Amino acid sequence: MITQRTVSFPTQELLDAVGELPSNLKPVIWDLVNEPSTNLEEIDITIFPYMASPHSLRNIDRAPNVSHVQTQTTGYDGLIDLVGDRANITTAAGVHAAATAEMALGLAIASLRGFPQAVRDQSEGAWSPMQWPGLADRTVGLVGVGGIGEEIRKRLEPFEVNLLRFGSRARTDEHGEILSVDQLSAHAGEIEVLILIVPLNDSTHHLVDAELLAKLPDGALIVNVARGPVVDTDALVAEVASGRLSVASDVFEPEPLPADHPLWQCPNALILPHNGGNTAAFFPRMVRLLKKQLPAWSKGELGENAVHQITS
Amino acid sequence: MITQRTVSFPTQELLDAVGELPSNLKPVIWDLVNEPSTNLEEIDITIFPYMASPHSLRNIDRAPNVSHVQTQTTGYDGLIDLVGDRANITTAAGVHAAATAEMALGLAIASLRGFPQAVRDQSEGAWSPMQWPGLADRTVGLVGVGGIGEEIRKRLEPFEVNLLRFGSRARTDEHGEILSVDQLSAHAGEIEVLILIVPLNDSTHHLVDAELLAKLPDGALIVNVARGPVVDTDALVAEVASGRLSVASDVFEPEPLPADHPLWQCPNALILPHNGGNTAAFFPRMVRLLKKQLPAWSKGELGENAVHQITS
Repeated sequence: MITQRTVSFPTQELLDAVGELPSNLKPVIWDLVNEPSTNLEEIDITIFPYMASPHSLRNIDRAPNVSHVQTQTTGYDGLIDLVGDRANITTAAGVHAAATAEMALGLAIASLRGFPQAVRDQSEGAWSPMQWPGLADRTVGLVGVGGIGEEIRKRLEPFEVNLLRFGSRARTDEHGEILSVDQLSAHAGEIEVLILIVPLNDSTHHLVDAELLAKLPDGALIVNVARGPVVDTDALVAEVASGRLSVASDVFEPEPLPADHPLWQCPNALILPHNGGNTAAFFPRMVRLLKKQLPAWSKGELGENAVHQITS
Repeated sequence: MITQRTVSFPTQELLDAVGELPSNLKPVIWDLVNEPSTNLEEIDITIFPYMASPHSLRNIDRAPNVSHVQTQTTGYDGLIDLVGDRANITTAAGVHAAATAEMALGLAIASLRGFPQAVRDQSEGAWSPMQWPGLADRTVGLVGVGGIGEEIRKRLEPFEVNLLRFGSRARTDEHGEILSVDQLSAHAGEIEVLILIVPLNDSTHHLVDAELLAKLPDGALIVNVARGPVVDTDALVAEVASGRLSVASDVFEPEPLPADHPLWQCPNALILPHNGGNTAAFFPRMVRLLKKQLPAWSKGELGENAVHQITS
């Protein structure tokens, strides 16, 4: 017997792009924000909107029979607390890797080559050539060696940097040595560019704190494409406002960064509004993932990227 | 018999960094701008300053016996006209490759990910997430496959782009097909990111003209890290001011870009003040080159990167 299941899509556009669904899957549209055109009780699987406030995601409670949540993000911080007692969770790991990795490289180069200053000069028609440090020859600490971390490593490779990688445990892979994140502090004095791409969890919360920041050399740059709370923002602001360190970040704590936050005023801060994975590369990769997930869901399986399973 | 020769260095810092000179080479300091502390008639070889106005370089005429000019740039446009009748020319090819190639990648990512807009938003404390095209999946036309062109190719490789390379003649190398620059116009309709890294000469002057720009698809980005006159600036301004194309450029015609130039006002122009090769990577690489050149000069040879030789 084939079980009929109802899958909610956050947009008609996404539903249209995945094409015909397996016959036992019924699509409905629900973005967790607007009133749905369907009875929420019938939804079994919910595809979350890509960009949604934690507040709107709480509306998942209005769909009492959802037993599987598919994110459009790689991170799933907060989601186990939200639905973990009743729903399996699969993520969009891989979908954002290219866009987030290029964001990390772009943030590093832009900051190290003075692009923010150039944009400010542009508004005044001021031509001010000067020497900037640049990325070549820098010692880069890459913290996080998962899917996106590996995409960042690949993209860094041709840039003539001295790369130190840090993972949850010391090991060796085909690209060489991975240091344990416990050793980050011991190496901080060498690290001129610190790139963060770890998942947010209890062990990475405020991983970059005042003590670690103090150990980085003068002029070091922090590039955060992970999650805001991986860095102690107050400690970061102190070091950046003094001019000793620079930051180029796509993620903050809190988000949105409040209009009166002191970081906005720092010329050595490059602030991106969490655009990490959100490029034209996102949609086709998300559609490709769903085209693999839907046949699995049709058979009662979870598909790829299961990060949480309920025991039933 | 060992011939004594006098070599002028533009700065004491550079002279100090290269260490002891071969015994038959006598160093003097001359930056072509300030009055030298030496008799200009004794100078045989002049190392040009890195950043110098065409105007100050004309002071080379005050040193009548210079028969060899060493640049600190890769390009040598204008130099043959200046000293070609009496002096050999060697360049700093290679020295700027890493910095210029990372500039090209940085300009492309920054523009395609909306960094200039983010910097402008930052000045107002405005958090405005939105989707930008991104570099992944773009069709990139790389015009120029010399030393720096190859460094750009290497750095582009992991970014999941569709790369078309154009050189002076069609051929194949170990990385695949190189199209002739004559075919650029025929392929322009596919090119979403056009990266320019050709030397400036008669055949590349205004290579990117109104006709070629008109063939690029809507939203295409021009990245110029070659020389300003490779692009017809008036034609470029027309397409950028209309919003149809974007530009992210380190070089312009003229330089400095005048304060009242219309390009400064275009939000879809990212203007860098010819910082291309000028990073912390420059000095150690220039010193390494001179440490190879000086022993050659000591033996009456030209050393590396000879681009012009007088027949004597």
